Amino acid sequence: SRRYSITLLAGDGIGPEVISVAKNALQLAGSLEGIEFGFKEMPVGGAALDLTGVPLPEETLSAAKKSDAVLLGAIGGYKWDNNEKHLKPETGLLQLRAGLKVFANLRPASVLPQMFILCVYQIQLVDASTLKKEVAEGVDLMVVRELTGGIYFGKPRGFGSNENGEEIGFNTEVYATYEIDRIARIAFETAQKRRGKLCSVDKANVLEASMLWRKRVMAIASEYPDVELSHMYVDNAAMQLVRNPKQFDTIVTNNIFGDILSDEASMITGSIGMLPSASLGEAGPGLFEPIHGSAPDIAGQDKANPLATVLSAAMLLKYGLGEEKAAQRIETAVLDTLNRGFRTGDIYSESEGNKLVGCKEMGKELVKSI
Amino acid sequence: SRRYSITLLAGDGIGPEVISVAKNALQLAGSLEGIEFGFKEMPVGGAALDLTGVPLPEETLSAAKKSDAVLLGAIGGYKWDNNEKHLKPETGLLQLRAGLKVFANLRPASVLPQMFILCVYQIQLVDASTLKKEVAEGVDLMVVRELTGGIYFGKPRGFGSNENGEEIGFNTEVYATYEIDRIARIAFETAQKRRGKLCSVDKANVLEASMLWRKRVMAIASEYPDVELSHMYVDNAAMQLVRNPKQFDTIVTNNIFGDILSDEASMITGSIGMLPSASLGEAGPGLFEPIHGSAPDIAGQDKANPLATVLSAAMLLKYGLGEEKAAQRIETAVLDTLNRGFRTGDIYSESEGNKLVGCKEMGKELVKSI
Ligand SMILES: CC(C)[C@H](C(=O)O)[C@@H](O)C(=O)O
Ligand SMILES: CC(C)[C@H](C(=O)O)[C@@H](O)C(=O)O
Repeated sequence: SRRYSITLLAGDGIGPEVISVAKNALQLAGSLEGIEFGFKEMPVGGAALDLTGVPLPEETLSAAKKSDAVLLGAIGGYKWDNNEKHLKPETGLLQLRAGLKVFANLRPASVLPQMFILCVYQIQLVDASTLKKEVAEGVDLMVVRELTGGIYFGKPRGFGSNENGEEIGFNTEVYATYEIDRIARIAFETAQKRRGKLCSVDKANVLEASMLWRKRVMAIASEYPDVELSHMYVDNAAMQLVRNPKQFDTIVTNNIFGDILSDEASMITGSIGMLPSASLGEAGPGLFEPIHGSAPDIAGQDKANPLATVLSAAMLLKYGLGEEKAAQRIETAVLDTLNRGFRTGDIYSESEGNKLVGCKEMGKELVKSI
Repeated sequence: SRRYSITLLAGDGIGPEVISVAKNALQLAGSLEGIEFGFKEMPVGGAALDLTGVPLPEETLSAAKKSDAVLLGAIGGYKWDNNEKHLKPETGLLQLRAGLKVFANLRPASVLPQMFILCVYQIQLVDASTLKKEVAEGVDLMVVRELTGGIYFGKPRGFGSNENGEEIGFNTEVYATYEIDRIARIAFETAQKRRGKLCSVDKANVLEASMLWRKRVMAIASEYPDVELSHMYVDNAAMQLVRNPKQFDTIVTNNIFGDILSDEASMITGSIGMLPSASLGEAGPGLFEPIHGSAPDIAGQDKANPLATVLSAAMLLKYGLGEEKAAQRIETAVLDTLNRGFRTGDIYSESEGNKLVGCKEMGKELVKSI
């Protein structure tokens, strides 16, 4: 039997609740496929701050690096909102991404891969979307976000003063060719496995960093003649995602634009509570996390939707460990649970005659489905 | 009779078509209120590049500075897309904004101010929106975008190489306290005149420039105890605009986030072809322009919707010259023309039994309505 070590980083807010559900799902789906997991739970974010004084303890990072894959819950909360930068929970997450060198963040805005599942699944979500049915139905896009560069990490950064002695705050948006080239390749390969269309989003009419981005993406395109490449300015992309999201297949963009556009895209499918993400590097363990936040307002109330984390666990199996079958077990179980009418508050609508459940009960039903 | 000098900058693509309609509307509405206009047409953007070799000729900027207000069409086109930065049409627009020192860009996502008009108007637009009727109906928000700072203008910027000799492209996101303070004041005052709610959008969990932004906005808030201030991260804001746009009244944000969010917000109202904007400084003429682009694909085909530029002319009258009555004449005429069923392609839907018209005919009907 195959054995993998998994680092579990529950983090803050609803993190522990959703991680616990995902852990059970992993364990069960794994055992049915002859997989054994060794789980190691480590602190990160606000939880780590409270415990150790830093948002990413060394032990957490080294455990993560040594494991086969990392599953993260969520990070952040009001409590730490006014902390200085190096003591913010979010800084721990950024250090983790940088430490694991996971430069490619895949954020699907339609979750289940098999066509037949996709259809059922989307009909479910279309009702929850604020977009008109004919606009939302059939949306199936993937945002490939650069995750370890750009303005999130660029130097110089900090505070200082200008020539008039006034305080300034500053950051640097910077990309080097190798950073653009490697994320572009991942994006082209992702598009190849999908519908063969890649849209690169930048602000090349204003920013030098974007001009280099566009130049390199165009250069790499020659390696992928079967992919149809287009370019779009970020302001237009934000608009087109609302106007006609079906026009998109794969989107590739920088760290900050990817942060904004993937959250926007997630809303189109109806609930951010359903969407997983995978962050991959050239080697070493991948980092898998729901794209939703820590939702401090509902933390500890057994109200969270665990499915985004459960589906992140499925991505972990598939992209992180190459365990397709176990991944499918989880995806199918998610669908089955939804089909049986179970809904957490964020995706519940009365008219359907569905059953409103909490995070734990959703987990129990999911286990039954697996 | 009052006399004003107006600089008309038609620019590129559909610019000349929409400016010509707006000019007629200004002239007629003005004359009915005893206003005389002296118009001066000057080149900018790609048109100026072709004519003079630079995207903002000195004569254009100095004419603009000397006039009472500036009305701009649109800028940019495929033809110049691969130009170097200082020879891009967009650079001309940025130089114009900087030259006129118009740091405050007001972008309403519901156009006509009077309540009774608003209602009728929105019912018209709700159909064109891709959002569900109950989500889009009644949306009435204003994005106050900082326009002459941040990553658009920050230095250092350019190209270089990293320690491995690889090419890099970089930009600087930077704000000084005075820049944040003055845009915050405009935003608080805007919120006061509206429903008294201001949401400041930043990425203060990651960026130092945003941390200073948030700190200063909170400091300025004490001057406006009657305004209810909230803060939101930009990724969440991009999501909330789709999820529930009615939660917003006034949004204030930096240059790049404002670029992205105002375009996204515009889509919620159904057509970006309807939305005007005003850019104001501490003194000197304001700059008024539609928020749509130059639409090179339909340029010269008499298909453009001139109403965004016409409504920008109304903003010019109101915010630029203090000529409320003439502004109202134009706004009422826009409504009347829409009520009589005239629609350009972008807002046309067959089922309503409307009349599909081109840009010129829309202009003629508008003149009749005035
Ligand atoms: C929590 C925050 C630092 C993070 C980011 O901006 O990357 C989050 O918004 C995300 O998208 O994963
Ligand atoms: C044309 C471009 C430079 C401009 C901007 O980014 O400001 C446009 O998108 C806008 O929003 O007015």
